[in-house]
Amino acid sequence: MEVFSQEFSVSTRKQMEIIDVTRGVENAVASSGIKEGLCIIHTPHATAAIIVNEGEEGLIYDITKKIEALFPVAEEYRHNRVDDNAHAHLASAFLGSSKVFPIKNSRILRGTWQNILLVELDGPRTRRVVVTVVGER
Amino acid sequence: MEVFSQEFSVSTRKQMEIIDVTRGVENAVASSGIKEGLCIIHTPHATAAIIVNEGEEGLIYDITKKIEALFPVAEEYRHNRVDDNAHAHLASAFLGSSKVFPIKNSRILRGTWQNILLVELDGPRTRRVVVTVVGER
Amino acid sequence: MEVFSQEFSVSTRKQMEIIDVTRGVENAVASSGIKEGLCIIHTPHATAAIIVNEGEEGLIYDITKKIEALFPVAEEYRHNRVDDNAHAHLASAFLGSSKVFPIKNSRILRGTWQNILLVELDGPRTRRVVVTVVGER
Repeated sequence: MEVFSQEFSVSTRKQMEIIDVTRGVENAVASSGIKEGLCIIHTPHATAAIIVNEGEEGLIYDITKKIEALFPVAEEYRHNRVDDNAHAHLASAFLGSSKVFPIKNSRILRGTWQNILLVELDGPRTRRVVVTVVGER
Repeated sequence: MEVFSQEFSVSTRKQMEIIDVTRGVENAVASSGIKEGLCIIHTPHATAAIIVNEGEEGLIYDITKKIEALFPVAEEYRHNRVDDNAHAHLASAFLGSSKVFPIKNSRILRGTWQNILLVELDGPRTRRVVVTVVGER
Repeated sequence: MEVFSQEFSVSTRKQMEIIDVTRGVENAVASSGIKEGLCIIHTPHATAAIIVNEGEEGLIYDITKKIEALFPVAEEYRHNRVDDNAHAHLASAFLGSSKVFPIKNSRILRGTWQNILLVELDGPRTRRVVVTVVGER
């Protein structure tokens, strides 16, 4: 059994943005040499999230709009007395900052439309994405 | 340390449906022979989800209604210009397609009312459930 | 490769309450002696949740209010014909009862503002928090 970890950064350009990081994650898993096991994709930030879904342009727009509808920027939040990004913290808390997948035959076991998406909620910023793989070579 | 993986399929019958898969997951964990470790339950689909909660009939109805209220079928979605299931993708992205549990004394460490539930959001279809266990025999 | 598991309890005082358990989780990870790997924080209850975000007092209030808005106590739920806590089950199902982190250099790899928060949704009760670590010493 082995543990392998690799990270990469993503520079976001907007306040809110969804970026497909599937290729970076798959490169890290390939570099691990691990054939069977588990993999976590984690972003160590309280105003970003990792979700899994199709990267189709229209859907990315729909996800963005749904997040804005459920966690509106303009609501009255107590956290905004000390900062101005409560909506981003709330969306991160609900969506989660990591996702876990099985590794099978040296690849992430994911469905055809299951892309790995970094959700920027308080950009633009540079965001870290950490990929940690545990399993058998 | 060992890795064990097993999968099974579930045939859903409705467009939206919640199916208790706890027994299938526990059979996979028992087959693994792993005593202490972690277990992931993953459905490799972008219009389904795995959640954890009580299987009581009234609650299953309440969860279904809450998903429909938060992600209505009939909203205007851009993804529906190319497909007709944006609501299902959105719910899957928010609920998540996998859950992770500790394994303790050869069993999933779950609460009395923590059943493992497959959420069909765009059925009827055949859905895969993958159980991967990592730990010590 | 090693597996280490430790648990602690938290006594909640209100019906709904968010309690920072980061220190207890970090103590468990330190006790594990594991340097590189993965860690799950799991609460084995169907009316509680584990989320990750900043522990700032105003934000904790905002998260509480958002949970109450999305899963109101006073809605009509079928589960409440047999019990009176459907809102708590719903919030637990949506928020999730566990979170997973990488372990790097003997520590949970988390962002500065990523505290680990136990969400009591149907208190006051005594809640278990299980920390299971898998990796290399």
